[in-house]
Amino acid sequence: MSTLVQTIAVLGGTGAEGSGLALRWARAGLRVILGSRNPEKAAKACRELNALAGTDSISFADNRSAAAAAAIVVLTVPHQVQRATVEEVRDAIAGKILIDTTVPLVPPKVARVQLPAGGSAVAEVQRMLGATVRVVSAFQNVPAHNLRDLDHPVDCDVLVCGDDVAAREIVIGLARDVGLRAYHAGPVCNSAAAEALTSILICLNIRYKVPGAGIRITGIPDTTS
Amino acid sequence: MSTLVQTIAVLGGTGAEGSGLALRWARAGLRVILGSRNPEKAAKACRELNALAGTDSISFADNRSAAAAAAIVVLTVPHQVQRATVEEVRDAIAGKILIDTTVPLVPPKVARVQLPAGGSAVAEVQRMLGATVRVVSAFQNVPAHNLRDLDHPVDCDVLVCGDDVAAREIVIGLARDVGLRAYHAGPVCNSAAAEALTSILICLNIRYKVPGAGIRITGIPDTTS
Repeated sequence: MSTLVQTIAVLGGTGAEGSGLALRWARAGLRVILGSRNPEKAAKACRELNALAGTDSISFADNRSAAAAAAIVVLTVPHQVQRATVEEVRDAIAGKILIDTTVPLVPPKVARVQLPAGGSAVAEVQRMLGATVRVVSAFQNVPAHNLRDLDHPVDCDVLVCGDDVAAREIVIGLARDVGLRAYHAGPVCNSAAAEALTSILICLNIRYKVPGAGIRITGIPDTTS
Repeated sequence: MSTLVQTIAVLGGTGAEGSGLALRWARAGLRVILGSRNPEKAAKACRELNALAGTDSISFADNRSAAAAAAIVVLTVPHQVQRATVEEVRDAIAGKILIDTTVPLVPPKVARVQLPAGGSAVAEVQRMLGATVRVVSAFQNVPAHNLRDLDHPVDCDVLVCGDDVAAREIVIGLARDVGLRAYHAGPVCNSAAAEALTSILICLNIRYKVPGAGIRITGIPDTTS
């Protein structure tokens, strides 16, 4: 278990990706607060996830209170509300690490790479927040349904992008806590690659009729990752 | 061996990526013409590659003549001369398939994702050529030195992007000819993901001190690829 982090807030924590991460972090011994705008939905998700994890370490709150109570804040909301959610918690995340899992999908053509004009949705959030928050991009490529399935390891690696190396290192530790191999993949602008790759994976799911294509990095011995 | 293709022109075929592909295609039984602006360099590369492949099926010509003599044309030149090379061979590739391996690296920061304003260097070539040429993006992520090393399989998959499905299928066959698993990864604009990923792989090579990080697609049974 990561010794640097004890409480994680997962904003949008009732969604597929957020709840999957929350479940695995809880099972790894971390305290998790689901941030949500819908208390009823959040209470229900909390009960379900605690039961699945066999813990009582998952709680819930509104996004702002969740962010205020945690050292690490994870953003798992749809791209359409990414910026609004960041604005909502802006004061509460000053000085902290924000893990942003956002993929800039443009419905209905989600299998088509359509990056924002600035190149990366996550890099735009780092620009928006300035140096007060260390934004780290991660988990874009991990199939959500695999996270929920605790009986099987997740067959996907994590590309971790951020301008602050120490913050990336913490996020790599948090990925390991949920059983994922993760790699330092450069500055936050490199998030464009992970964001674009998600549309490719959606494309592969459709074309090859599989539930969750993923990626593995090759050529790096396990001991160095 | 792909039965649909007999002669391939590799423009920029004396470079690392081009010569590696030429070598493996020759060994798979295809005829390859190295396109080059430098006849001396091309003659030398030809001799070396034929010796390595144990064939005499690799020849050379200037880019325009090479493109004119082949059914499939592969572009493996640096991004800086990508458009000029395409202009040079424009008449010779009408009605053909152009496999574009270009990665829009911006020296000196090649480990930083810096996609062109249009999103993808290869998609820009498709726009430039219009419907007369079927442009297919492939091989961006394959470490060049691995292609040269015939004693070992290349531990990297190929994302194949193009607007024409039949053309993508032919390129997937050509990737198989050189021992690579390749996947239909959507329209040509999706090339942005493969192009961006190359900077990530360069990043990983530097960070983890390895010669050639690559990617594998997971979650798709081998029989369907």
